[in-house]
Amino acid sequence: MDTILVRYSEIGLKGKNRTYFENKLVNNIRECMKKNKVRFSNLHKSRGRILLYSLPKAATYLKNVFGIASLSIAKEVELNHKAIEKAVEEASRKERFKTFRISVQRLNKNFQKTSMQLEAELGAFVVKRFRKKVKLENPDLNIHIEITDKAYIFTETVFGFRGLPISTQGKVISLIEDKESLLSTILVMRRGCSAVLVGFKDFDIEPVKRFAYGFEVKFIKLKKFEDIEDIAKRNKIKALVVGQTTETIKNLETDLLLLRPLVGYSKLELIQLYKQFGIK
Amino acid sequence: MDTILVRYSEIGLKGKNRTYFENKLVNNIRECMKKNKVRFSNLHKSRGRILLYSLPKAATYLKNVFGIASLSIAKEVELNHKAIEKAVEEASRKERFKTFRISVQRLNKNFQKTSMQLEAELGAFVVKRFRKKVKLENPDLNIHIEITDKAYIFTETVFGFRGLPISTQGKVISLIEDKESLLSTILVMRRGCSAVLVGFKDFDIEPVKRFAYGFEVKFIKLKKFEDIEDIAKRNKIKALVVGQTTETIKNLETDLLLLRPLVGYSKLELIQLYKQFGIK
Repeated sequence: MDTILVRYSEIGLKGKNRTYFENKLVNNIRECMKKNKVRFSNLHKSRGRILLYSLPKAATYLKNVFGIASLSIAKEVELNHKAIEKAVEEASRKERFKTFRISVQRLNKNFQKTSMQLEAELGAFVVKRFRKKVKLENPDLNIHIEITDKAYIFTETVFGFRGLPISTQGKVISLIEDKESLLSTILVMRRGCSAVLVGFKDFDIEPVKRFAYGFEVKFIKLKKFEDIEDIAKRNKIKALVVGQTTETIKNLETDLLLLRPLVGYSKLELIQLYKQFGIK
Repeated sequence: MDTILVRYSEIGLKGKNRTYFENKLVNNIRECMKKNKVRFSNLHKSRGRILLYSLPKAATYLKNVFGIASLSIAKEVELNHKAIEKAVEEASRKERFKTFRISVQRLNKNFQKTSMQLEAELGAFVVKRFRKKVKLENPDLNIHIEITDKAYIFTETVFGFRGLPISTQGKVISLIEDKESLLSTILVMRRGCSAVLVGFKDFDIEPVKRFAYGFEVKFIKLKKFEDIEDIAKRNKIKALVVGQTTETIKNLETDLLLLRPLVGYSKLELIQLYKQFGIK
C-alpha cells in the first residue's frame, strides 16, 4: 500500500477551532474511503498533514472531499539520508525523463540537513546515477520530498477543491430542479454545509453524491411547496438553497433564509464550474 | 487617434434581445469615456464589434466596463493587401522581437484572400523584410489582423471582465459595511444590475465607482435599518445585496429579496476576486 499525503489550506486559518475542522476532515476522508469501498489503514494527522495508507485509486475519490487542497501518493521512508536517496532512486527509475529537479519541503526543522543541502546532494546523485540534467523550470520530472516525522517522496500532486469540510457549517435544504440547483448545492457544500435535497420531480443527483462526504445525502420528493417548511422544521434547518441566477431571480413564499449562490457568477465562470464539478 | 476594437461575448448569446444589450454597452462605453474625460469619436457597432477612435489610455478605463470581453488598440486601414502589408510593417518596426507570428481573423468572408493565405503571405513578408523567424507557439510578437469592413492590425489585447452591461437587469440596493459588501455589489453589477449604495457609516466606495458606468452611483447614509425599505419603495427596487458569506450569514428584517452573492465562493476565490477588482 502507498502512503497518501493530504494537504488542506483554508482550515489553517481557523485559529483555535482548527482541531475541530481537522477532525471533521479526517472523518469525511474516512467516510469517503468506506462509501467507495477502498481499503485503507492508519488514517491520522501529522504536522499539518493528514496521512493514510491506501491504493493509488483512493486519490480519485479523495480529491472530491471538500477541505482538501491537494494530495500526493508518496513513498514513506525513515528520516535518514540513505533511505531518502534510495526512494529518490526508485522514483527516478520508474519514470522516463530527460530533465528533472528535486524540491524539498522541510516541515520538521529538526532534520539535520536544510532543504537546499538536500536538493543539491540528491540532485547530484540523480545526475551521476542516471546521467540526467537538472532544470529548475518546467522539468520533465519533479521529485518532491516532504520532511515531517518521516520522509515522503512523490512525483505527482492531485489538486482538490479546497473549501471547508462538510458538516463544519450549518445544514440547508436544497431545491433540486435543474443543473443550476445542483451547482448551487455543491457550492454551498464546499463552504461546509450539509444539505437535504428536495424536489417536485425525481432528479439525477449523482453530481452531488460525488461530493457528499460528511453527511448522508438523500432526496425527498415534495407534493407541494409548503412541504419544504415542514422538512425544515423537522430537521432544524433555517436556509433554503436555490439555483436562481441574476436573470432568473424571483421571490419564494417561505420564511426560510433564501440562498442563491449563483447570482454573482458570470456565464463563463458558470460554464467552468459545471465542467469542474462534472455537471452535464 | 487610434482605433479601439471592443469585443463582447455573453451578449452574443442573447438572441433577439441582442441589439438591446449591444446598445446598452455602447451607451456605457460612451459614459465611461465622458466620466473619465477621455476624448473620443465615431463610437459605433460593426460586425459583432464596437469601434471608437480615441487615445491609448482609453483602454485602462474601458476594461472596467462590464460586458466587454477584450479590447485592442489597432491601426485601421482600407481593405487591400498593400495597406495591410504597410500596417504590418509599421507594427513590426515599433517592436523588438526575434520570433513572431501573424494571426488573421476574417469576419468578412467577402475579402478575396483566406486567413491562411494572408498569414502565409504576410509572414513571408516580415521574414524577408526584417529577417525574423516565424514561431507559432509563444512568439515574442503576435501580429493580429481582423478583417471586417476595414482591416485592423494590432499586437496587444487587454482583457475585460465580461458579464452583462450595467442597466440591462434590475436595480438593487446595496448595504455597504465592509469590503465583502463592495465585492458583492461589483459582482451583481457585473450581472447587469445598477445599484443604490447605502450604509450607516461613510465608506470609501471608490472600488465600486471604478465600474459604475450605466448608472449614477451614489451613497445614501442611513439613520436606521428601516430607511432601506423607504429608499426601495421610492426607487422601485425589490432586492437588497449584502456582503454575507456562508460563515457570516444571518437573516435581516426586510421584505426585500435578499442577495448574498458571496455564499458560493471559497476563501481562495474571494482573495482572487478582491485582487482582480482592486479591493484592498
